[in-house]
Amino acid sequence: MSKKLTKRGEDYSKWYNELVVKADLAENSGVRGMMVIKPYGYAIWEKMQAELDRMFKETGHENAYFPLLIPKSYFSREASHVDGFAKECAVVTHYRLKNDENGKGIVVDENAKLEEELIIRPTSETIIWDSYRKWIQSYRDLPLLINQWANVIRWEMRPRLFLRTAEFLWQEGHTAHETKQEAIEEAQKMQGVYAEFAESFMAMPVIKGTKTESERFAGALDTYTIEALMQDGKALQAGTSHFLGQNFAKAFDVKFTTKEGKQDYVWATSWGVSTRLMGALVMTHSDDKGLVLPPKLAPIQLVIIPIYRTDEQLDAIDAKVKTMIGELKNRGISVKYDNRTTYKPGWKFAEYELKGVPLRIGIGPRDLENNTLELARRDTLSKEIINQDNLTEKVISLLIEIQENLFNRALGFREGLITEVDSFDEFKEVLKNKGGFISAHWDGASETEEQIKNQTKATIRCIPMDNKNEEGLCILTGKKSVKRVLFAKAY
Amino acid sequence: MSKKLTKRGEDYSKWYNELVVKADLAENSGVRGMMVIKPYGYAIWEKMQAELDRMFKETGHENAYFPLLIPKSYFSREASHVDGFAKECAVVTHYRLKNDENGKGIVVDENAKLEEELIIRPTSETIIWDSYRKWIQSYRDLPLLINQWANVIRWEMRPRLFLRTAEFLWQEGHTAHETKQEAIEEAQKMQGVYAEFAESFMAMPVIKGTKTESERFAGALDTYTIEALMQDGKALQAGTSHFLGQNFAKAFDVKFTTKEGKQDYVWATSWGVSTRLMGALVMTHSDDKGLVLPPKLAPIQLVIIPIYRTDEQLDAIDAKVKTMIGELKNRGISVKYDNRTTYKPGWKFAEYELKGVPLRIGIGPRDLENNTLELARRDTLSKEIINQDNLTEKVISLLIEIQENLFNRALGFREGLITEVDSFDEFKEVLKNKGGFISAHWDGASETEEQIKNQTKATIRCIPMDNKNEEGLCILTGKKSVKRVLFAKAY
Repeated sequence: MSKKLTKRGEDYSKWYNELVVKADLAENSGVRGMMVIKPYGYAIWEKMQAELDRMFKETGHENAYFPLLIPKSYFSREASHVDGFAKECAVVTHYRLKNDENGKGIVVDENAKLEEELIIRPTSETIIWDSYRKWIQSYRDLPLLINQWANVIRWEMRPRLFLRTAEFLWQEGHTAHETKQEAIEEAQKMQGVYAEFAESFMAMPVIKGTKTESERFAGALDTYTIEALMQDGKALQAGTSHFLGQNFAKAFDVKFTTKEGKQDYVWATSWGVSTRLMGALVMTHSDDKGLVLPPKLAPIQLVIIPIYRTDEQLDAIDAKVKTMIGELKNRGISVKYDNRTTYKPGWKFAEYELKGVPLRIGIGPRDLENNTLELARRDTLSKEIINQDNLTEKVISLLIEIQENLFNRALGFREGLITEVDSFDEFKEVLKNKGGFISAHWDGASETEEQIKNQTKATIRCIPMDNKNEEGLCILTGKKSVKRVLFAKAY
Repeated sequence: MSKKLTKRGEDYSKWYNELVVKADLAENSGVRGMMVIKPYGYAIWEKMQAELDRMFKETGHENAYFPLLIPKSYFSREASHVDGFAKECAVVTHYRLKNDENGKGIVVDENAKLEEELIIRPTSETIIWDSYRKWIQSYRDLPLLINQWANVIRWEMRPRLFLRTAEFLWQEGHTAHETKQEAIEEAQKMQGVYAEFAESFMAMPVIKGTKTESERFAGALDTYTIEALMQDGKALQAGTSHFLGQNFAKAFDVKFTTKEGKQDYVWATSWGVSTRLMGALVMTHSDDKGLVLPPKLAPIQLVIIPIYRTDEQLDAIDAKVKTMIGELKNRGISVKYDNRTTYKPGWKFAEYELKGVPLRIGIGPRDLENNTLELARRDTLSKEIINQDNLTEKVISLLIEIQENLFNRALGFREGLITEVDSFDEFKEVLKNKGGFISAHWDGASETEEQIKNQTKATIRCIPMDNKNEEGLCILTGKKSVKRVLFAKAY
């Protein structure tokens, strides 16, 4: 087959890029840094969206839609937010083109210059809080629990498919609350939703923690994160949820009348995950033969491929498979029967392996005689000849088993790559030779964090919420520390 | 209640704008021409999306996602397309802001000027066909049946919520085929899907037809349309499907190897509906008391409101309603129990009337004693006291009845507003005093169409596909005509 893939061990980064393109997930477009999400990749994203959307609604959130373009001045209102976001962004300056008088095709019409430039949203806090001022008057209007599915643009100098693209798709939750405590609980609840989604659907174990001040969202008082570990030992921030305090309420003057009749600013959160999760999914499970997809997110859970020489054989297989498929679909299994005559079985086997379909059935004339079929698992690459009886039940239980196996495999891998160190030499050695998360003491100072980053490229991924307090000494400064934090090189 | 609505008879346009805002569907944002779609409005749009998406997938289409920004030069490749679309659009010229050296806040960084301007998509033919060149090599890659859900921007000088907004949400289908005939069939099939959606879900009767040359999509050889009639007698184009011939394949050099081994350009279609449908939905059914929603698209199909004086009474009603709701939800009915103590029953009655909830139940202490409840229909505003037995069955059959009634009412209204005329005087008289569609003979010339438009503001909405051939004389020029066409003033 012509779709030969670079091996992970040879060049992990190259393997990733090739796989994303060859498995038809996404490709670069003619616009620098912007990708095209192809139908197969988009089908996985749709499954992610559907589950997340269900989880958001179950936790009381509603969807809405706010403008793509934000007046430049909105960003300036929240001081730390503008520093973080208003820089690398797409700026709309004109609203019309015209035919060039000298026949040079279409050119920008200088008479259609906007009075104030509009920014394509890099995130929507400012435009949303400008609306919330009108929506919130009284405690009866709270909590306001809103989510938006949208595209955003953050200009990227070193784009990579799914992981870092100038345009990406995401959801952004924006909530408003009566009290500080309620807002903090909301931010933590959504971190929990993200962790649940990552582990139960993506089969990707994550560590829940808080960000240090320097890694926080621009405008947040606290950022709650879920951190995953990729196969190359680098960490990936998979989702964040922010407690924003009253910063945006003050910047956009959003006050409410309390039950006691007083005026107060509301408390805010925001939280988001993006198509970056697609990159995380690929890098958590896939192998040198291609994608490996968890059954809960696989657009095709089972593919059936006929093996035949003559048209009569194919007809007989078609008839047999038709009844199988009916039963499988009735039980909610997404099954594809690929009986195209324009491709050979060998090509199809490789193709669906590349595309990460969890289960594959091969069925030929001898199988029809013997009431058997060949069932292959993508996760273990094992094959067995089984009896056709009770096929649907076998498929259902195997899909559950594969989902669990992928999670456990990824968990085992990650657990083997969390290393406790107590000196900076050891820190550097582990980082260089082993990778993964390094659990170490840190004195709590941003300058220390910065120095470690400058010397090693490792950053504090999070202060894990599950970590117990433990007295120790900062690996760099030797100052006192009360808790270990997790360092890693990260995507 | 403070949400008093202008009456339709007083000022239809004002009624519409007020209703959209007061029913919490949408509102204007701080950015000219761009709306915020509020949660209640977005919930209706989500239901539309879900049904359309299901219909697209059932007809073999897959979703994908293409970049928001399109290089300016792409538009120039298809000559008629650029004239139609590349003019009133948002132009991105820079990719960075910076802090002003003179302390004037953030300003555009002139060092970050793009070499080529990027246009925010007004429609995506050009960027999509630039991708299709890479995706299509052989007849085995065809047909390519792709849809995209996306936001687009077309700068609007006279924006109106949902009907004409600078940014709107839509879906755009883009397909590629081996033969001309197959592409034409696809374009007509999707027109049929749109008509089916409009009539079966929106309860909005539509007329299927083709557009005249002057009303065609820029770049299309034929545009198939569905046209609806609003309550003020103006027509609204609700969806269009285009046969694009080989125009875009030639502009973007998309060739394929035929089964016979020859090279040929592929044949194309594109088709779309947008959040404009929200405006059509409002203007088809709603009345002076507010929205009237067809049950199939209503986010809340049934609202239950407790009527009580004491806490004990409310507790007793709560308990009773809880069992009712369980059964209703089991049968897939979207039911809301509004037992908020912060609002009075009268306020709630008006609120859900304004929001178009198809069925309302009022239930009080006496109802508990008598095993009764009050059931009110939004479409007819009728109320009756009924027995609580078999409530779920009654609700289900009433929801079906309401859906049908809304369609039939709208159909009856429209049928009364299709007028055949045979002279230009009659044409003008009907247009002025009656409105609606006018069925008249036209000589087929664009100049004639243009003259009629200039004199009357009426345009040819479509050449109805169901119209039989009939010899006649053009109402303006007296020249020969073989078929009547439909004129109207339009949104």
